[in-house]
Amino acid sequence: MARIVMKFGGTSMAGTERIRRVAELVRAQAAGGNEVAVVVSAMAGETDRLVNFCREANPLYDPAEYDAVVASGEQVTAGLLALTLQGIGCKARSWMGWQVPVKTFGAHANARVDDFDAANVLVAMQAGEIAVIPGFQGISEDGRVATMGRGGSDTSAVAIAAAVNADRCDIYTDVDGVYTTDPRIVARAKKQKYVTFEEMLELASVGAKVLQTRSVSLAMKKNVRLQVLSSFVDADAPSADSLPGTMIVSEAEMEAYLEKENMERQTVTGIALDKNEARVVLTRVPDKPGAVAEIFLPLGEAGINVDMIIQNVGRDKGETDVTFTVPQAELARAQALLEGLRDKIGFNRIITDVKVAKVSVVGMGMKSHTGVAATMFKALADRGINVQAISTSEIKVSVLIDSDETELAVRVLHTAYDLDAEDAVDGAGV
Amino acid sequence: MARIVMKFGGTSMAGTERIRRVAELVRAQAAGGNEVAVVVSAMAGETDRLVNFCREANPLYDPAEYDAVVASGEQVTAGLLALTLQGIGCKARSWMGWQVPVKTFGAHANARVDDFDAANVLVAMQAGEIAVIPGFQGISEDGRVATMGRGGSDTSAVAIAAAVNADRCDIYTDVDGVYTTDPRIVARAKKQKYVTFEEMLELASVGAKVLQTRSVSLAMKKNVRLQVLSSFVDADAPSADSLPGTMIVSEAEMEAYLEKENMERQTVTGIALDKNEARVVLTRVPDKPGAVAEIFLPLGEAGINVDMIIQNVGRDKGETDVTFTVPQAELARAQALLEGLRDKIGFNRIITDVKVAKVSVVGMGMKSHTGVAATMFKALADRGINVQAISTSEIKVSVLIDSDETELAVRVLHTAYDLDAEDAVDGAGV
Repeated sequence: MARIVMKFGGTSMAGTERIRRVAELVRAQAAGGNEVAVVVSAMAGETDRLVNFCREANPLYDPAEYDAVVASGEQVTAGLLALTLQGIGCKARSWMGWQVPVKTFGAHANARVDDFDAANVLVAMQAGEIAVIPGFQGISEDGRVATMGRGGSDTSAVAIAAAVNADRCDIYTDVDGVYTTDPRIVARAKKQKYVTFEEMLELASVGAKVLQTRSVSLAMKKNVRLQVLSSFVDADAPSADSLPGTMIVSEAEMEAYLEKENMERQTVTGIALDKNEARVVLTRVPDKPGAVAEIFLPLGEAGINVDMIIQNVGRDKGETDVTFTVPQAELARAQALLEGLRDKIGFNRIITDVKVAKVSVVGMGMKSHTGVAATMFKALADRGINVQAISTSEIKVSVLIDSDETELAVRVLHTAYDLDAEDAVDGAGV
Repeated sequence: MARIVMKFGGTSMAGTERIRRVAELVRAQAAGGNEVAVVVSAMAGETDRLVNFCREANPLYDPAEYDAVVASGEQVTAGLLALTLQGIGCKARSWMGWQVPVKTFGAHANARVDDFDAANVLVAMQAGEIAVIPGFQGISEDGRVATMGRGGSDTSAVAIAAAVNADRCDIYTDVDGVYTTDPRIVARAKKQKYVTFEEMLELASVGAKVLQTRSVSLAMKKNVRLQVLSSFVDADAPSADSLPGTMIVSEAEMEAYLEKENMERQTVTGIALDKNEARVVLTRVPDKPGAVAEIFLPLGEAGINVDMIIQNVGRDKGETDVTFTVPQAELARAQALLEGLRDKIGFNRIITDVKVAKVSVVGMGMKSHTGVAATMFKALADRGINVQAISTSEIKVSVLIDSDETELAVRVLHTAYDLDAEDAVDGAGV
């Protein structure tokens, strides 16, 4: 017996038939003697429909009213799943965000969630009633409806799992786990049995779209065991022991698992790619103290997320080129902002390029293994792939390359780090 | 300056363009220095869509979950109207039913509303902020979303008007007031300037579909002045003084109005028709004490609303025919129930007829004028219209006739009670 939070996305909730399938998966868990809460997204397409209504009503919309409108999509699916569960013989009820209450703070439309008391929900779960909770939404400090940003239902699920002290938070998606890389690019990519929070956080932030980044950092903070698994499995199959998906766990649990299985830590856990970045080069920036701050402070204040930065010092006397990346969606805004600062910064030209891709290798093993970056640069150089920028963290190395070479680079690196599966079955992540 | 509650139905809220029109009407009232709250329905068709989802999910749906699902439609339009008002320069915010809070009691999906404290909303209104409130919904005694039955937004509007002590509750509809009868049947029907609560209650209950019956009885109880007016008028036109629609008021206010205008009370205020009744005849029921109770008690317990009743005593010795009407929608259920009681009641046959119509004349003036019913029967008899059943209240006489003769009967009665307008312009209700 365990206490489980299950989360289903919009594709799984799109229409009566699919909700019925979700209900079967939920019933299977409840029938196994587990205490179950379910967190649901709106039907696929519904949130877009509501966002469009808001834009039509007022292009500069008030986020508090936007929240009241868009949160309705999850309210509908939560009620419908509760009805469907009742129809197949389960005790179930829906809990709106404000009823739990899922307390949020921060700005409307991008609210954050921390601790809250879900004692009422827990009492109901312990009495054998399945709690169905709309994802993405909560109640703001001023008592209004608040939403957590697109994809926020993952974060809702983790927050609720923490609030009811769940043994596991199962995220049902259209993939069946976390792979060493995108299986559509590398057919021999392996599904991982275990990945640490830190690794998943880096993978999520560099383009592996399995989980919302914020949900992973919240799970790490609250030590909520996350499982990623497919919503298209047989309702009878998944159980706590068979672990059909990928578990996202703490470093301690990962070490215990490796010891039990007598396995060694792999150096690289996954290879992620991101084609949504754009490269910006400012040429002939005066090479003086404070020049770089004049570029990046205004971008930061405008909420534009700058990722990789390279400064080519000393090309010409007293001048330098500054290269960095921003999300493609923010390129136009960044460009306009910088043009307005041309005199203040003193650059010559702005050169932009969206035909770039960021490829990243991620792994906790890098902490204890040297030469990970060197292996990457050599493998890419051997195939003539030019590296335009580099950024690193303790457990990640990212390179910016020509987007035409993305798939080639991913395949080359997958082999270079010994990640190719020997057979097509699920590996143990080694 | 006045404090006004404005209510708009689903047709007025159906889409961005129509919401913009509503916003203009609201702005006109606010710009006149009034304190304004707006109560809105869901977009036309949306509630049906949500009800269908519930039926698909679980045909025997839990009313509490049904409420959570269907209440979302008004949540969306309330947010969108607030956004639209902000977009045209008004201060506005939406208040969900649970935020006001609109406290309800009784069964889910058919909740009732009485007193509640809307102090927060009132403070905001007094500070010049337009309050936009979803109709049809409130919060139940157990803290969940509750809805008030189809058409409940009229009742919401009246309840909110009472809670904020509004000077007037304006119900915007697709007609521009209450007429002496349906203008599609009698071209010379007159729009009434004033109608009393009691008259409106009778008119609403016998088929004049301008207002939900429950909203009128609540307005009468709370003494909320109701105004029915068209949502298709020019935004600049309506003002408290020009009274473009029909005011539904207390008896005292009606008398003051008649005295001021030096007018006499009309005997009949309106003629309503209802084609949704069905006639049921049970033949050869034993003419003994308690026989009638054995028919109507089980129908009442099954929630079937019996209206007109006639017992033809003494046709045959010891036997009688019992005639009554039920709503057509409940005819099949009533018939099945009675068949099951055939032996207990001891009747011979059940004869049913849906080709009937109920025509009613309503007016406070009946209290002091005699001969109203006699005028009705004579006028109908003169045109050869056969009366199948009769029912009366203190201010109403209803007859059941062949539905083919409905329009003829309405025209004949409209003339018989001197209601035909002398010209096509709005009369004063005399």
